Amino acid sequence: MLTATDKAAATQEASLDPEDWDGLRALGHRMVDDALDYLRSVRERPAWQSPPPAARDRLRGSAPTQGQGAEAAYREFVENVLPYPTGNIHPRFWGWVIGSGTPLGALTEMLAATMNPNVGGFDDAAGLLEDQVLDWWKELLGYPKSASGLLVSGGSMANLVGLAVARHAQAGFDVRKAGQAAAPRPMRLYASTEVHSSVGKAMELLGLGRDALHLVPVDAEYRIDIPALEKAIADDRRAGTQPFAIVGSAGTVNTGAIDDLEALGALCRREGLHFHVDGAVGALGALSPDLRPRLRGMEKADSIAFDPHKWGHFPYEAGCILVRDAEKHLATFAAQADYLAKSEGGIAGGGKRFADRGPQLSRGFRALKIWMVMKATGTNRLGASMAQNVAQAAYLAQRVEAEKELELLAPVPLNIVCFRYRGKPAVADADALNRALVVAIQEAGIAVPSSTILGGRYAIRVCINNHRTRREDLDLFLRETLRLGRDLQVKEAHGHR
Amino acid sequence: MLTATDKAAATQEASLDPEDWDGLRALGHRMVDDALDYLRSVRERPAWQSPPPAARDRLRGSAPTQGQGAEAAYREFVENVLPYPTGNIHPRFWGWVIGSGTPLGALTEMLAATMNPNVGGFDDAAGLLEDQVLDWWKELLGYPKSASGLLVSGGSMANLVGLAVARHAQAGFDVRKAGQAAAPRPMRLYASTEVHSSVGKAMELLGLGRDALHLVPVDAEYRIDIPALEKAIADDRRAGTQPFAIVGSAGTVNTGAIDDLEALGALCRREGLHFHVDGAVGALGALSPDLRPRLRGMEKADSIAFDPHKWGHFPYEAGCILVRDAEKHLATFAAQADYLAKSEGGIAGGGKRFADRGPQLSRGFRALKIWMVMKATGTNRLGASMAQNVAQAAYLAQRVEAEKELELLAPVPLNIVCFRYRGKPAVADADALNRALVVAIQEAGIAVPSSTILGGRYAIRVCINNHRTRREDLDLFLRETLRLGRDLQVKEAHGHR
Repeated sequence: MLTATDKAAATQEASLDPEDWDGLRALGHRMVDDALDYLRSVRERPAWQSPPPAARDRLRGSAPTQGQGAEAAYREFVENVLPYPTGNIHPRFWGWVIGSGTPLGALTEMLAATMNPNVGGFDDAAGLLEDQVLDWWKELLGYPKSASGLLVSGGSMANLVGLAVARHAQAGFDVRKAGQAAAPRPMRLYASTEVHSSVGKAMELLGLGRDALHLVPVDAEYRIDIPALEKAIADDRRAGTQPFAIVGSAGTVNTGAIDDLEALGALCRREGLHFHVDGAVGALGALSPDLRPRLRGMEKADSIAFDPHKWGHFPYEAGCILVRDAEKHLATFAAQADYLAKSEGGIAGGGKRFADRGPQLSRGFRALKIWMVMKATGTNRLGASMAQNVAQAAYLAQRVEAEKELELLAPVPLNIVCFRYRGKPAVADADALNRALVVAIQEAGIAVPSSTILGGRYAIRVCINNHRTRREDLDLFLRETLRLGRDLQVKEAHGHR
Repeated sequence: MLTATDKAAATQEASLDPEDWDGLRALGHRMVDDALDYLRSVRERPAWQSPPPAARDRLRGSAPTQGQGAEAAYREFVENVLPYPTGNIHPRFWGWVIGSGTPLGALTEMLAATMNPNVGGFDDAAGLLEDQVLDWWKELLGYPKSASGLLVSGGSMANLVGLAVARHAQAGFDVRKAGQAAAPRPMRLYASTEVHSSVGKAMELLGLGRDALHLVPVDAEYRIDIPALEKAIADDRRAGTQPFAIVGSAGTVNTGAIDDLEALGALCRREGLHFHVDGAVGALGALSPDLRPRLRGMEKADSIAFDPHKWGHFPYEAGCILVRDAEKHLATFAAQADYLAKSEGGIAGGGKRFADRGPQLSRGFRALKIWMVMKATGTNRLGASMAQNVAQAAYLAQRVEAEKELELLAPVPLNIVCFRYRGKPAVADADALNRALVVAIQEAGIAVPSSTILGGRYAIRVCINNHRTRREDLDLFLRETLRLGRDLQVKEAHGHR
């Protein structure tokens, strides 16, 4: 049956597998050695450094039509990429809310990509593993086993999924079919002014619009003001809009404030609203017996968004959404297409389909790194690491308060410390000086704090979401902050920065 | 300054790093050996097998409070997880549209998670690398360098981003602020009845609603019927709705049909519509000089969604969206929050912010696997692998047509072959028999085709998106399909299946 052309084509068939398996194996061993050496010695390097011009130049240029081989590509990586990480693996990286990762997590990513499953809900081990990991999260966060869930790219996507479920369950019309324009009344979501930006972004993306997010003031502890919230809901109802959900923050990104989740849950039940918790910052604290009481009420939420890649230190990306009512979750996303038709057996014959729980159809094997590191390390040790960060934040706050030249700018209920250099005598322009101070600390490679604005005042923000941090790191950071702050104050006095 | 309690706490500080680095190193080396052996020998194993009850039992159970160590966790993985992959790494996996991955891609995932950057747009190597990789895709797909882009989780997210840009650019009002309810007229999107399900899902999520997606019939080659599309747009305008975009498919998921992208682009320009291409199935064919002409017109699109993790064989997840007009892209997503305020230097002092281009804020290092494998392998070889799959599909189609008991059900313009067993004499219930046949082929571990419905008829669907496939695999598959088909036909005749 084969033609001569067919035979010629067949003999030329080639895969993308290596021609030299032993060579790739040797390279793989070198990669493991290099990776572990790199992590083991991270403390000896700067917390951050900008890629120099030479590395930047080498990271330009056209698409490689001809391959240069794995060895040469790896050499380029070692020279131009590896030395310039974001820095969150470093013990003195405290910017934003970014996890550190772990060596075992990194090795496990190789295993996940070796199996390279598409975790869309086939009858395979990856699907079983995601089920198990979701069950673990339910158990750890006090959720019933009947709940549904999904591993997603991160907190932004988890909030989007949770709010999509809230919208669909509460709309009172078929929003999937008819769209938001068919809403009989404008729908309204409630959250505090401290809520994460991804909630507003989700409202935009969902076509509800940012105006449909009613931001409610916070109290002195940066928690949502419940009486103000109750009034907002009542006012909005009178004005003819339709409240549909409240977002509670289990750890705000600015200061780590935890809303009164019990009160929010009770209010949602009274008002018939969906209760969504954004726990990207703090929900994982539930793994620590010391921190769990602060999150009381979270377990009553209708949905919880959280981020294993943050305080859990599983490598990026690993976010998660849990939804109490599995039916509502599926009703929001489940689709049917001819080529996806269920089979009565074979690989597509399983029960669940993860694609019916969120926006993704093809999905990677996020569950493996969580499964492997949890099994190896245990949730107690992960929780203890979080409690350690909270104790370190309290320690830092106490040291800031003891320094007359520094000023603590917010309470420290979790692992985030906001303060600034005020000088003694006081600096003229504290905002400008502290802005310069943050850059100076980062550019010297000392540490990576980030910044925020609190009550109109620029704050240095230290988020200790880092299992490698020690108190000695915080001591060094404070020492250098004072030194650089004084230098900048002298310069300010002389009129140049 | 330190209290006794502080000192005690400080001495107890512990990271999540291994206590025994050398032990983890030895384990890492074993993982590399096991992973490469596993991929090298994949051909010797079944294309798919269902996890047996014993493995399922071991993938249940509570969250591990106490860690058992990396060694023990890895042993469990090797025993209960590794043997039961989805199967897309196997040379005879042709279900859905799923890439195979590569050994180097898998090793590179370990490196990405070792650096563990948060690719949100910091001044680091990961950001530079994503820029470079995006520039490569622009170049390879014929896009101008001034275009914008983003690596995303996959085609579903890429389509969502592209359609969000289209909606925002075309709305004529501030949809981010006011939401879809503020639209003066109902907005309409156009695509063929063969368009991927993620487009409808995106419409639902965006609050436009599934009804706003106007599905247009296809011609005999499963390409969008352009006169019918023109009429639909004109009718909709007359009815007072607002057409805003057309989605062209560069490879439909059912049959690999490529819409007439040149004609669609011209129509969009005439009508003032956004032209989005869903190229998840076929866009990467642009890497092959043989396939590139079939995609003519794609380079004129306003946005292109495609999937490096499919035909590019980069490990999951790696999707991509390109947007011709960078301003429109940013205008759709760019946000500002206090704690994200731009700095004039330091780690946040770079120019770009990837979070301003899509729904994610925290983002993993997807660029590295693309960069590394492209450098090592070269785009020519990747393109040749795709052309090889197209030639193999043509070969399979030709063999199907030569077999009287088989029936080709659709043209084969790319790498997808839809056919079925009809028998000779003809089977009584071809739908039921072929449904059972697909399950039998999968459960015997022979191969993994999927299925679809074409013109109301159940089809066995073979999507050769697999760099390990050889013609001998297709021969074996056909031989077994005929054997099992005949068996099932005998059983059908005896009234039991």
